[in-house]
Amino acid sequence: MKMPDCMNYIQITEPGGPEVLKLAHAPVPEPGEREVLIKVHAAGVNRPDVIQRMGNYPMKPGMSSVPGLEVAGKVIRVGASVTGFKVGDNVCALTNGGGYAEYCAVVESQVLPIPDGLDMIHAAAIPETFFTVWANLFELGHARKGSTVLIHGGTSGIGTTALMLCKAFGIKAYATAGSQEKCEQIRALGGKAINYRDADFAQVIAQDTQNKGVDVILDIMGGSYFESNVNSLARRGRLVIIGFLGGSHIEHFNLLALAEKQATVTGSMMRSRSEEEKAEIARALTKHIWPLLDNGGCAPIIDRVFPLAEAPRAHQRMEQGEHIGKIVLEVL
Amino acid sequence: MKMPDCMNYIQITEPGGPEVLKLAHAPVPEPGEREVLIKVHAAGVNRPDVIQRMGNYPMKPGMSSVPGLEVAGKVIRVGASVTGFKVGDNVCALTNGGGYAEYCAVVESQVLPIPDGLDMIHAAAIPETFFTVWANLFELGHARKGSTVLIHGGTSGIGTTALMLCKAFGIKAYATAGSQEKCEQIRALGGKAINYRDADFAQVIAQDTQNKGVDVILDIMGGSYFESNVNSLARRGRLVIIGFLGGSHIEHFNLLALAEKQATVTGSMMRSRSEEEKAEIARALTKHIWPLLDNGGCAPIIDRVFPLAEAPRAHQRMEQGEHIGKIVLEVL
Repeated sequence: MKMPDCMNYIQITEPGGPEVLKLAHAPVPEPGEREVLIKVHAAGVNRPDVIQRMGNYPMKPGMSSVPGLEVAGKVIRVGASVTGFKVGDNVCALTNGGGYAEYCAVVESQVLPIPDGLDMIHAAAIPETFFTVWANLFELGHARKGSTVLIHGGTSGIGTTALMLCKAFGIKAYATAGSQEKCEQIRALGGKAINYRDADFAQVIAQDTQNKGVDVILDIMGGSYFESNVNSLARRGRLVIIGFLGGSHIEHFNLLALAEKQATVTGSMMRSRSEEEKAEIARALTKHIWPLLDNGGCAPIIDRVFPLAEAPRAHQRMEQGEHIGKIVLEVL
Repeated sequence: MKMPDCMNYIQITEPGGPEVLKLAHAPVPEPGEREVLIKVHAAGVNRPDVIQRMGNYPMKPGMSSVPGLEVAGKVIRVGASVTGFKVGDNVCALTNGGGYAEYCAVVESQVLPIPDGLDMIHAAAIPETFFTVWANLFELGHARKGSTVLIHGGTSGIGTTALMLCKAFGIKAYATAGSQEKCEQIRALGGKAINYRDADFAQVIAQDTQNKGVDVILDIMGGSYFESNVNSLARRGRLVIIGFLGGSHIEHFNLLALAEKQATVTGSMMRSRSEEEKAEIARALTKHIWPLLDNGGCAPIIDRVFPLAEAPRAHQRMEQGEHIGKIVLEVL
């Protein structure tokens, strides 16, 4: 395949609002020894991209400063030691940045085949949320058949993914959202919806579980929900914090609330995970989740698709918070 | 064996200092269907007894209001459904209260045979600390061969037990204490001592581990150590809080500190564990720990022995904080 020297990508010209995202040109990346070069067809938009754009989430050294944590496309070159993929393969990948671009180099261990029957748009919507939900709800949170879980932001990319996987694995899920429409989407995905504008989620959980609480909470709020989350945990329950939309600081917390019921508080950020950790997650996804996706039972929910050049509108939509499911950039 | 109707025990006459512990008389307890009645030879003294005496740690409904969480002695009666023990067996037991007495009824699932070669005094010093260390350092904290751990209060009953088990399992242990003498005891047990009066433990851990931190912290301080503890955790490290000598309240904590390194905060209190949980721990101790005790390699360290009637002096000694190892009441 003939490859140009230069490509379009989205540059964060300075920290700021969606308008700082500008189409720019740069050389096509060279894949490293363990990397594949992907001709990107579609790139998922994620909350961390917005935070990065604002200047609050700097990438680790060695990672791309170009936004974009997931892509789907076709392999057009492979590094010398790559064994699992070859030129022409259709793949999706969790990137270490650089997804908002026509070409993206990704280490082989974070690349996965596109599940049977999914198009590029849907495939691009998979990696970030599926890596995140698997690593946090299932691995850190130990959710399993018979568990009861609470998912905050039930209609986000992560929320819809978590709800689908809960349904697939026989896990009872509560999920919070802020509108009737979103609550209906939660119910359509098999979850029990809690509209946080109408009710205190901790009260609903307490009533509905006869004060038993839930086994796992997947939380994107952080500080503002911390105490209510801990109060909503069952004995030996696990709170897994993966976002800080409600800030990261807590004040006046009583640790006895944890020790009395042997509850656990933990959290993680995909971006701070090592390559080896991401490779582990990819192996687990291949084994436990890809079979579900292959038979079409668990396709990601797409909110809206924008052309790459309209990345600012995609970010606007995410910041308005009215999306349901994933926002995707179409590159070709 | 002839059994009197009435026995001596230690009563908490009202919440207060050691002087509220008074020798009193009561009927010998009737063992329930699943209980054995133990003629107590020795009873261990533990920090929760002191807190209970102060009125700050009420027993759960259905538990004895008599202090004493562990005993060693001889089985003199068994309930109808007891199958694992018979009259005449020498046993030690984790009680649900009631240990400071001549007779104590304990559910069979919390009773264990006395390890070979241990006398009653040493046997009485085992259950509470071994149940606690196993359940927290090993089960909740996942310490295992090759781990690095930090133990606060390294010369307490729990601390010395934790150090011995770390040595037995090939775990590198740091431990804090407040005097030269205690630090020498820590070193004698194979631990690396940190005198908290001379140095900031978090700085020592950082230096000594090249800023890597420790995999597990077994903490008895709670609030006052919380931030330094989290800072001392390695990536994916676990902080297990089992005591609150430094209070239970925290203020101004940044949850990002957990999520960035996937750290976990948890804790437990033996007293709030269910009978089934305690039975699980007893089974694990029988399997993993009793063999170590049988060969004499891991005998508990005894600080001092007081007669039952001198329970107030035993509490004084614990509150002065100069003891090293376990304080035990001798009943016969």
